[in-house]
Amino acid sequence: MTVWLVGAGPGDPGLITARGLELVRSCEALVHDALVAPELVAEAPDDALVIPRAKLAQAEIDRLLVELGRRGLEVVRLKGGDPFVFGRGGEEALALAEAGVPFEVVPGVSALSAVPAFAGIPVTHRGVSAQVTLVSGHSASGEELDYAHLARTPGTLVVFMGLAHLPELAAGLLAAGKDPDTPAAVVSRGTRADGRAVTGSLAGIAALAGDLPSPALLVVGDVVALGAAVRGAERRGCVPVV
Amino acid sequence: MTVWLVGAGPGDPGLITARGLELVRSCEALVHDALVAPELVAEAPDDALVIPRAKLAQAEIDRLLVELGRRGLEVVRLKGGDPFVFGRGGEEALALAEAGVPFEVVPGVSALSAVPAFAGIPVTHRGVSAQVTLVSGHSASGEELDYAHLARTPGTLVVFMGLAHLPELAAGLLAAGKDPDTPAAVVSRGTRADGRAVTGSLAGIAALAGDLPSPALLVVGDVVALGAAVRGAERRGCVPVV
Repeated sequence: MTVWLVGAGPGDPGLITARGLELVRSCEALVHDALVAPELVAEAPDDALVIPRAKLAQAEIDRLLVELGRRGLEVVRLKGGDPFVFGRGGEEALALAEAGVPFEVVPGVSALSAVPAFAGIPVTHRGVSAQVTLVSGHSASGEELDYAHLARTPGTLVVFMGLAHLPELAAGLLAAGKDPDTPAAVVSRGTRADGRAVTGSLAGIAALAGDLPSPALLVVGDVVALGAAVRGAERRGCVPVV
Repeated sequence: MTVWLVGAGPGDPGLITARGLELVRSCEALVHDALVAPELVAEAPDDALVIPRAKLAQAEIDRLLVELGRRGLEVVRLKGGDPFVFGRGGEEALALAEAGVPFEVVPGVSALSAVPAFAGIPVTHRGVSAQVTLVSGHSASGEELDYAHLARTPGTLVVFMGLAHLPELAAGLLAAGKDPDTPAAVVSRGTRADGRAVTGSLAGIAALAGDLPSPALLVVGDVVALGAAVRGAERRGCVPVV
């Protein structure tokens, strides 16, 4: 028996790993985040215990995983993106470790690069950006962003966030001296069939993004300007389900 | 016809995406990086044209993809990690766009989080790190690292590199004022069956890493200290091949 902390990927169900999909298909219990694609939840065996994470606090999830693991079940904890990139997988791993329950981490495709890619944007590009900085703009993360430092950071800035925080994030960067003409993009529900992206300048991005639905990701940096060339040419059809 | 820029993931062949594996299995031409797992190359159909990237310069790869795409073949360009994270996928995408060849990007699991995870290290962790900075320590990237800025950057620093650059990287951060006791890890061939990790302090890491084989990744930050608790408990067996 073991507990598998599996990354479901950024939204498109085809972007789960081959190994992750195999584990979902053979598990006895599946504990999944609300944002995980329903197509992936449906891949669990018919007789598997399927538990949506919704409404459980993190400490309750931790206890649930320990309890299911101790029952001797093959447990898949299916998390959006990658378990160890703003996924709180570390907390679940430590809870399992402290309880002596064997577990293993199966990484997933993070929104970090997959969601900008959905808008044609490479987060690194030779001669344009050789550094990527990732922060969370969710107030729930509890940390205050150091706008003065971020405004002077070279390369590409990627912010995981709720759209409600966008005006405050953009204003914070501008007040700290970031060039208002820096290219910026907001990608909403990236990699999903209903995904949308808007691009503009840092000064104008909050107005452009309007009321796009969450989850969303903010990309700031010159790589954003490459997106139009890449995306304009790219063939983008419906994303097949696994 | 189209060209698919597909991320093969960080090394373990089971970490390719379900969609990527499906594309490899149905392609007519496969152009792959040297670091891509042979198990994945072997998944191409028997009659597919298989072209190792080795010894081709980037401009030659770009031309090859355009030529294969124009022949009307279903082409998979299989790249290590994620195509848009230090993968030069943006250059290939722009070459295809300029030539009018339809293409699509299929993201992959980046070493960024998967390789630290192999050593039990979550790149973010509540109360420990809410920021990740990714740079390349390969001299080939052409950019000089701004050690003064990096040394003052909060959170987790991840450096993609060849091991040969490690002493210079560590010395650069220390000379810029980074605390010599900052936890640091080097993970060599992470996610592969022959992967190894060493952890210590920033001051001592270059000596500890010795002559571990490339590719390797340097992680600097307090999250490294979580790795021992996570990895000590984690069950880590052989990684099954897809």
